[in-house]
Amino acid sequence: MTRTSFAAACAALAPVDIAGAGVEAAELTGRLTKPRGSLGQLETLGTRLCAIVRACPPPVPEPVTVCVFAGDHGVVAEGVTAWSQEVTAQMVANFCAGGAAINVLARHAGAQVVVVDVGVATPIPADAPNLLRRNVRRGTANLAAGAAMSREEATAALDVGADVAAQAVADGARLLVTGDMGIGNTTSAAALIAALTGRDAAAVTGRGTGIDDQVLAGKTHLVARAVARLAPGAEPLDILAEVGGLELAALAGFIVAGAAAGVPVVLDGVIAGAAALLAAAFAPDVVGYLLAGHRSSEPGARAALEHLGLVPVLDLDLRLGEGSGAALAIPLVQAAAKILREMATFDSAGVTDKNVAGR
Amino acid sequence: MTRTSFAAACAALAPVDIAGAGVEAAELTGRLTKPRGSLGQLETLGTRLCAIVRACPPPVPEPVTVCVFAGDHGVVAEGVTAWSQEVTAQMVANFCAGGAAINVLARHAGAQVVVVDVGVATPIPADAPNLLRRNVRRGTANLAAGAAMSREEATAALDVGADVAAQAVADGARLLVTGDMGIGNTTSAAALIAALTGRDAAAVTGRGTGIDDQVLAGKTHLVARAVARLAPGAEPLDILAEVGGLELAALAGFIVAGAAAGVPVVLDGVIAGAAALLAAAFAPDVVGYLLAGHRSSEPGARAALEHLGLVPVLDLDLRLGEGSGAALAIPLVQAAAKILREMATFDSAGVTDKNVAGR
Repeated sequence: MTRTSFAAACAALAPVDIAGAGVEAAELTGRLTKPRGSLGQLETLGTRLCAIVRACPPPVPEPVTVCVFAGDHGVVAEGVTAWSQEVTAQMVANFCAGGAAINVLARHAGAQVVVVDVGVATPIPADAPNLLRRNVRRGTANLAAGAAMSREEATAALDVGADVAAQAVADGARLLVTGDMGIGNTTSAAALIAALTGRDAAAVTGRGTGIDDQVLAGKTHLVARAVARLAPGAEPLDILAEVGGLELAALAGFIVAGAAAGVPVVLDGVIAGAAALLAAAFAPDVVGYLLAGHRSSEPGARAALEHLGLVPVLDLDLRLGEGSGAALAIPLVQAAAKILREMATFDSAGVTDKNVAGR
Repeated sequence: MTRTSFAAACAALAPVDIAGAGVEAAELTGRLTKPRGSLGQLETLGTRLCAIVRACPPPVPEPVTVCVFAGDHGVVAEGVTAWSQEVTAQMVANFCAGGAAINVLARHAGAQVVVVDVGVATPIPADAPNLLRRNVRRGTANLAAGAAMSREEATAALDVGADVAAQAVADGARLLVTGDMGIGNTTSAAALIAALTGRDAAAVTGRGTGIDDQVLAGKTHLVARAVARLAPGAEPLDILAEVGGLELAALAGFIVAGAAAGVPVVLDGVIAGAAALLAAAFAPDVVGYLLAGHRSSEPGARAALEHLGLVPVLDLDLRLGEGSGAALAIPLVQAAAKILREMATFDSAGVTDKNVAGR
């Protein structure tokens, strides 16, 4: 049963309310007992939350759901990674058992983890708990040799993501966090980022989970050749089908549907960045709902955030994925809301404001 | 009743255990189900926690106590700030009532706030709840005109800080966070940082809570002249008495005594950075116990962290003080411990490690 199609989410998406709640937030921030601007990015975050939820002060964004979309990539046949494809399914089992980094970090932040098989190649044991089985295809085709998937498969994966987001919000989530798993997925992400930002493959292709100079050179060349196959002005769906991935498609759907439901979406690293570029290509208003959890050390992540105009909350040299960097940012996003909700004003606390003293 | 003198804390301080628990942590980190190094600074933080508490994995560092030391500065007579001196006492009342940014952020992190009047000039109402009244002197003398305080007053303030830290640890705290309040204190902090790092006044003097170019030029000149009064090779206590502040002294005492008790200390911004430089000048082994919560936008903060070799957790363009940036870092410090405590290893989760696969 599908609650929300990707197309319906795109149609439902409205711009954030900068002129109303956003302006109210900036005004309230100026009356709180602290020098103006002294909470830096936390103030910007608070204002953005208000614009997203159309209220000032905003409710504390909780409960939180992290959705980890897993998919495999035929491009691993090209030797772009040192990890074997079976690791995707093994890590899905690890997520379901609660032992991975994202489980630890989500628990720490009081967030729920939902694991979604949208395109894993290796069969996952039937007894894996808490797994949403929404497999569209057992891994993409090798994007170095031709289209990664059909337009129909790409649409199906977009729909899976949109549906998972709508279900999470229906279940109560008021903050959504992107997570991902897929051996080989930084190659697909680099191709998407190159195609959607217009940057050179060399500027957006990185070492992923750790490859040497020679493998990186081959990966970069492969990304450049794949992107060169795209027609000038190709549609987002064509770009996605040609060089994308199933979990990347699902994440784009997840991001748009979360935004369409009026819920802020915290992005993790380079995979989320590529998915967010896709989401914005389909539905430009989505960008107002996005919070960049961190700046991954992967170069494509920086390119994606710059293109989207997003300033990351954290910059901890992380390159794990799974949603780990975004999960670490959850307490900071919630803190920004609490500053607006709980701080005293100069008037209420009887503190002399230098900006009005003596007038 | 004083539990711990500053001198006793300096004598009790032992180096952190890098060779034992630190090495164990690095080894354990390498077996967790993630690419090696992929959690970046979070891995470094985890290793440092192990070295501090001499255990791997480390206990989760909680409960947490934020100690906000408040003091006034005679140098405000020179017009180095746009805020009036009475604001220090007003903000102390705000801290006691729970309405300031540090209260909101500490509550969010599950931390207790202890407010200490170590040198506020304006009398604080007798009914202020939860205030530790340990006033050594009602504000320093004007450091532009002569010594800010006597060596005896500096020692008394160091002792207050050491005692507050020892009491917090005796009350159960397993993570200490520095906080501060004092109109004019960025001038004293800049002088301390210039004196203790050897950098020019112009490189370490900033706009504090917001001053214009002309006031900044005067503040910088004043800092340079005050530092020039110090004898070459002056003792830390002489530097502190000449250009320091009462809350800065107390923070240095707090930092050393926290470390001497084997507890990690999270530093806030430029005031904490100046106090940490002082602490390290008195007791060099203290540096191993320090975690830099954030990099303040105040230039002296960057200089202090570089001199101490500390990499900040956050970089959010904060310049509020009070302990706000350090409080925001608390969940990340705790997350680093939980990664070591709760993540599965490749062996336990049955995940194929690329570094051992095929051997």
